[in-house]
Amino acid sequence: MSIHTTIAPLDRAAMERAKARQDQLTKPAGSLGRLEELSIKLAGITGRLDPRLKDRVVFTLAADHGVAAEGVSAYPPEVTPQMVLNFLRGGAAINVLAKAAGARVVIADLGVDADLPDRPDLRALKVRRGTASITRGPAMTLNEAQTAVEHGRRLVAGEVGRGLDVVLTGDMGIGNTTSAAAVICALTGLDPAEVVGRGTGVDDAGLERKRDAVRRALEVNASSIAKGPLETLAAVGGLEIAGLVGVILEGASRRLPVVIDGFISGAAALVSAHIAVLKELELDPLLDLSLRLGEGTGAVLSLFLLDAAVAVLNQMATFDQAGVSQREGLIIESTTE
Amino acid sequence: MSIHTTIAPLDRAAMERAKARQDQLTKPAGSLGRLEELSIKLAGITGRLDPRLKDRVVFTLAADHGVAAEGVSAYPPEVTPQMVLNFLRGGAAINVLAKAAGARVVIADLGVDADLPDRPDLRALKVRRGTASITRGPAMTLNEAQTAVEHGRRLVAGEVGRGLDVVLTGDMGIGNTTSAAAVICALTGLDPAEVVGRGTGVDDAGLERKRDAVRRALEVNASSIAKGPLETLAAVGGLEIAGLVGVILEGASRRLPVVIDGFISGAAALVSAHIAVLKELELDPLLDLSLRLGEGTGAVLSLFLLDAAVAVLNQMATFDQAGVSQREGLIIESTTE
Repeated sequence: MSIHTTIAPLDRAAMERAKARQDQLTKPAGSLGRLEELSIKLAGITGRLDPRLKDRVVFTLAADHGVAAEGVSAYPPEVTPQMVLNFLRGGAAINVLAKAAGARVVIADLGVDADLPDRPDLRALKVRRGTASITRGPAMTLNEAQTAVEHGRRLVAGEVGRGLDVVLTGDMGIGNTTSAAAVICALTGLDPAEVVGRGTGVDDAGLERKRDAVRRALEVNASSIAKGPLETLAAVGGLEIAGLVGVILEGASRRLPVVIDGFISGAAALVSAHIAVLKELELDPLLDLSLRLGEGTGAVLSLFLLDAAVAVLNQMATFDQAGVSQREGLIIESTTE
Repeated sequence: MSIHTTIAPLDRAAMERAKARQDQLTKPAGSLGRLEELSIKLAGITGRLDPRLKDRVVFTLAADHGVAAEGVSAYPPEVTPQMVLNFLRGGAAINVLAKAAGARVVIADLGVDADLPDRPDLRALKVRRGTASITRGPAMTLNEAQTAVEHGRRLVAGEVGRGLDVVLTGDMGIGNTTSAAAVICALTGLDPAEVVGRGTGVDDAGLERKRDAVRRALEVNASSIAKGPLETLAAVGGLEIAGLVGVILEGASRRLPVVIDGFISGAAALVSAHIAVLKELELDPLLDLSLRLGEGTGAVLSLFLLDAAVAVLNQMATFDQAGVSQREGLIIESTTE
């Protein structure tokens, strides 16, 4: 089974124009480091040196995980629906940080194991009430995974009419760092000991249970994992992870910058890259703040860097405009060029 | 010789209140990582959980360096006055990034080796036209260093009436990474090979000249360096570095958060800490974007994190308010607590 997708290639000509302009701005070439790289990447994604970044939407997708019953999280599963209600009331970290960054928050229920209120600001896209435990078999069927991916795609498509320039990914789901770790191990071949972390903050015994759960999940689902990325997603992933795969694929196919939030979204990005047959993600984290919350908080915090990168590229004076002397003698390689 | 200064101690009670509140907000304790630490630090500095951060001013101080004649920079010394004019026209990176961050830019001439225009948006505080080369003797006299420090203090004091909630440091001066490296080596005992970098981007030969210049500066000024931090500043520092010492000391004495930009400002912060007899700076960089421009660009880029930290602390719901379950069983230590 596969998902039809077309990822737009980077616009190399726009990237060259952006690089040439960066080198003419009144600063040593490369001296704004990753801010320069970011402006060039944004030009490649959007095809523009001055991409519009005004309408930014964080898609925070929620679902429950059968594996949560096995003591892999410091929090009980009922926290998933409680946090969805907190999102809807505006009291969570993602609400506060999105507001500070001028981003809209779209909350969607892809598979929360509870009856949630029927209200327009909660997208009701429940595929099923939580996954089965990945330690005993597949988390969901292939059809369920594909449905969740399609829901994610339609969420993005639906926001375009309201204005959508930047897609940000977010997640909520007690137990979802276990599923995400299983997906990452399955697709990369990395050992659970390298990939599994403390998530929301389990103790040593919980960490060992979590690693063991991932190992068992990889064993019991080995034949599904061997079949491909969508099969892997269905076998050891989660419903919000599948939804985020759709969010990422739809954003990328529309030439929108997609900002990946962290571990859960990273697992979804890895599945997307495998579906799109990209060799590698070529991503480096923009921020390293020891965040481990999810929800989209890291993605939203990085928005200021996107704004800054585009502002530098478009608003700074060139050496010619400013009458500033360039380097003496031959142009030499600088440390970051 | 010493500079009279009182650095306000951190308000430990406010920090404890901020920490207690962070632990009650609807997220795993510590899961917003350094954003939480930052909100607690801001509470300690200002004595408030909701410090005002609205009026933020980057003090970009410019001066020339005699050592620039010795081939330590990829750019000729006339770039210093040219860039000051670029700052005044609003075309430099610091103008663009400060605008994006909602910060005012204060440009001051502490010692540019050129006649600059007489205009109200350029603070004319020239102590002398550039320093003497630190490789042959002291950069400036003790009186000149102290005058530059006082100018920096008065710059900050003068902005208070216009609104000043956050102080950001910035610099411009061809050759100033050489002086800053000499100051850092002199105060820390580190070897020039560890401290001296490529600055604006010198080639390998330039890097070797730069390291050699710092070594000679430390030798020829050894007796001054032995006397204390202000003597070290006068012997191997620069006029904008001395001005920034004043900016930092005045900001700290007024309980204002001071955001240190990078290498040059870091040298000034180190001198300030020695003057204030602080054992160590206890600073970790907020951003690691491979920036090497200076001007205050790194400081300004970090402002969004200050805003975000204070927003989280004040605007998020607590577990009680949101009806979200806390951890199961005993509270256990998480990875970052």
